Amino acid sequence: MAAIVSAGMSHFGKRDDGILDIAAESAGPIVEKFRESIDFALISNCYSGELANVSGLNDLLTTYLALDNLPSARIDNTSASGGAAVLTACSLIDSGQAKAVLVTGVEKMTGRPTKEITKVITSLLPANERGAGPSLPSLAGLLTKLYLRKYPEVKRESIAKVSVKNHENGARNPIAHIKKRVSIDDVMGSRIIADPLRLYEFCPVSDGSATLLVVSDWIADSYSSNPVYILGTGIASDTSYVTERTDLLELASVKKAGEIALRRSRIHSPDFAELHDMSTILEIVESEALGFFDPGKGPEALENGVTEIGGQFPINTSGGLISRGHPIGASGIAQICEAYLQLTDSAGARQVKNARSGLTLGMAGFGNSAVSVVLGGAP
Amino acid sequence: MAAIVSAGMSHFGKRDDGILDIAAESAGPIVEKFRESIDFALISNCYSGELANVSGLNDLLTTYLALDNLPSARIDNTSASGGAAVLTACSLIDSGQAKAVLVTGVEKMTGRPTKEITKVITSLLPANERGAGPSLPSLAGLLTKLYLRKYPEVKRESIAKVSVKNHENGARNPIAHIKKRVSIDDVMGSRIIADPLRLYEFCPVSDGSATLLVVSDWIADSYSSNPVYILGTGIASDTSYVTERTDLLELASVKKAGEIALRRSRIHSPDFAELHDMSTILEIVESEALGFFDPGKGPEALENGVTEIGGQFPINTSGGLISRGHPIGASGIAQICEAYLQLTDSAGARQVKNARSGLTLGMAGFGNSAVSVVLGGAP
Repeated sequence: MAAIVSAGMSHFGKRDDGILDIAAESAGPIVEKFRESIDFALISNCYSGELANVSGLNDLLTTYLALDNLPSARIDNTSASGGAAVLTACSLIDSGQAKAVLVTGVEKMTGRPTKEITKVITSLLPANERGAGPSLPSLAGLLTKLYLRKYPEVKRESIAKVSVKNHENGARNPIAHIKKRVSIDDVMGSRIIADPLRLYEFCPVSDGSATLLVVSDWIADSYSSNPVYILGTGIASDTSYVTERTDLLELASVKKAGEIALRRSRIHSPDFAELHDMSTILEIVESEALGFFDPGKGPEALENGVTEIGGQFPINTSGGLISRGHPIGASGIAQICEAYLQLTDSAGARQVKNARSGLTLGMAGFGNSAVSVVLGGAP
Repeated sequence: MAAIVSAGMSHFGKRDDGILDIAAESAGPIVEKFRESIDFALISNCYSGELANVSGLNDLLTTYLALDNLPSARIDNTSASGGAAVLTACSLIDSGQAKAVLVTGVEKMTGRPTKEITKVITSLLPANERGAGPSLPSLAGLLTKLYLRKYPEVKRESIAKVSVKNHENGARNPIAHIKKRVSIDDVMGSRIIADPLRLYEFCPVSDGSATLLVVSDWIADSYSSNPVYILGTGIASDTSYVTERTDLLELASVKKAGEIALRRSRIHSPDFAELHDMSTILEIVESEALGFFDPGKGPEALENGVTEIGGQFPINTSGGLISRGHPIGASGIAQICEAYLQLTDSAGARQVKNARSGLTLGMAGFGNSAVSVVLGGAP
């Protein structure tokens, strides 16, 4: 088993810095403190070549951090890269290949026209579907229409409220990209991006990094008085052909990844979750796929405040991708950083009371694959 | 411990096919045979985004192979990606995360102007050194000058003979990119690329893929009557700043990766090696860094036929990067495929007699990092 003994994040947002500076902002302080112990580095990143003109990022970053002799690799699973990197770190530790793994997620995405960024991200869709013109936002719009048709009792505004909640949470997160509170009228009044979804219902394009130090549980106590244990990980895939899914609302990869992580962790109901709210609808559908709410009941829970920080089951206390931002390779690690802060009672204005365990969920593509991690105190 | 129970390669060369087709050419037959058993896929690849306009390659490939529910990730460590992927596969297996891992290395590089490809690859150099204008070929030229200055008794032609040997070997390899035998006069008569190195002393730009099925040693016998065991892996790094190396000839990462892999495998002297001959000089310097020959003595061994297929210690029986080709993400896996063929007595016209163990060595950047794998029969 592995434990997290340190975690940090850079500021998320539009940054003028290069990808190495952004990565070092979260990794640097941890490296300074634990330099001698770290024996492997995994870099969670997808688009350094396409968007930051850098390849061999893992070697360049370890050199930049003066960790010249540290073995390293880059792990990519698009938006689920962070989870895949943590799962890999656990394997390196459990197999005896390493005992203290630096896991840094980073992406530099801003500074290019949105159209160009969308084109790069759309390259994760199969070529034949790509040719038909969908993008991830347009698929989210389609998912919303399907959801509202299947559950006619759900009001359109209930889905938009995910944005209000997550902006409220993000406003309390010092590193969030968007720290502005928004009202339901602001959300429903923002321009349509992918009918019926509107601008404030999507994550922004962000730069940022997040870093964890993951160590063997045998030595965790010598690094920290308050380690957070990685109780279970789950990774699962679905066909990449969206047109071949039996039911787009099902998100089979999300469901399965969560099931595996929860089963392995022996946790039945975690106290909070960080989900992949690339758009409002996804937080709703994922929360149902993961079994936290019955199908069609996610919006009701939201309306009743269940998923707010003070509710019975807070979701995306960090602000989620919508407010914290979504530097693709960093997001999965940032989710786990938030869980670390919550579980060490260090989340400040976002603190969930009596948080003992939490679940994170990152989704690649449009459910092409997913990785879930369950964290908590000593098992 | 893990074992390889199946291995295959695509044809290497200039291919009109897309990256998924090229990957499927090596992975497909293995998947057809072992579909039900495979429970994880690792894709070794560096430049799918930059050179093949595809991201999320791991998910697209598993879907393409009708392995929809297979968890997967992409592993990148530039030219040492293949070794890093195999090391990761071993960790997944040793940690119990997986029991049968499909490891496919692939790169689609041709079809673009050489200048553009060089620019993409040069993005692995640190920005401040990149600005000074070096490329990997020019660094190899510099290395040659340093070597010849340090060992004045070595003739320039002795280094070029690596190319003659590797072209001879490649001419016997059905999947090699370049199957043409060349004489020393051909090599020394080809045009200068990076003084004093000439065209035939460098690997070509190639497309290709290679696939391994890596399984837990506990179950290896149920997959194959002739499994090849991964006896040891070693990964090591050096500063990415070439200008900060004490001695460019030292290749500290290569030396250390080999030492670790050999120590873990308890093999002192393997029977053959596949080295990273991005250029002729690198095969020589690596063979010395790995301790197979004393410093400055690599060329003498070559002149005496020691490193030929019929010699006492054959190097690059496959033809190496120079003749088999160098699709970056595929090369490390192809090296291990060659070792698998040799150790299962299946290398045909390239067969090394009584081959019981072999070492492979992949190098990222210009020694920024390196991964070595030692393979052999049941320990």
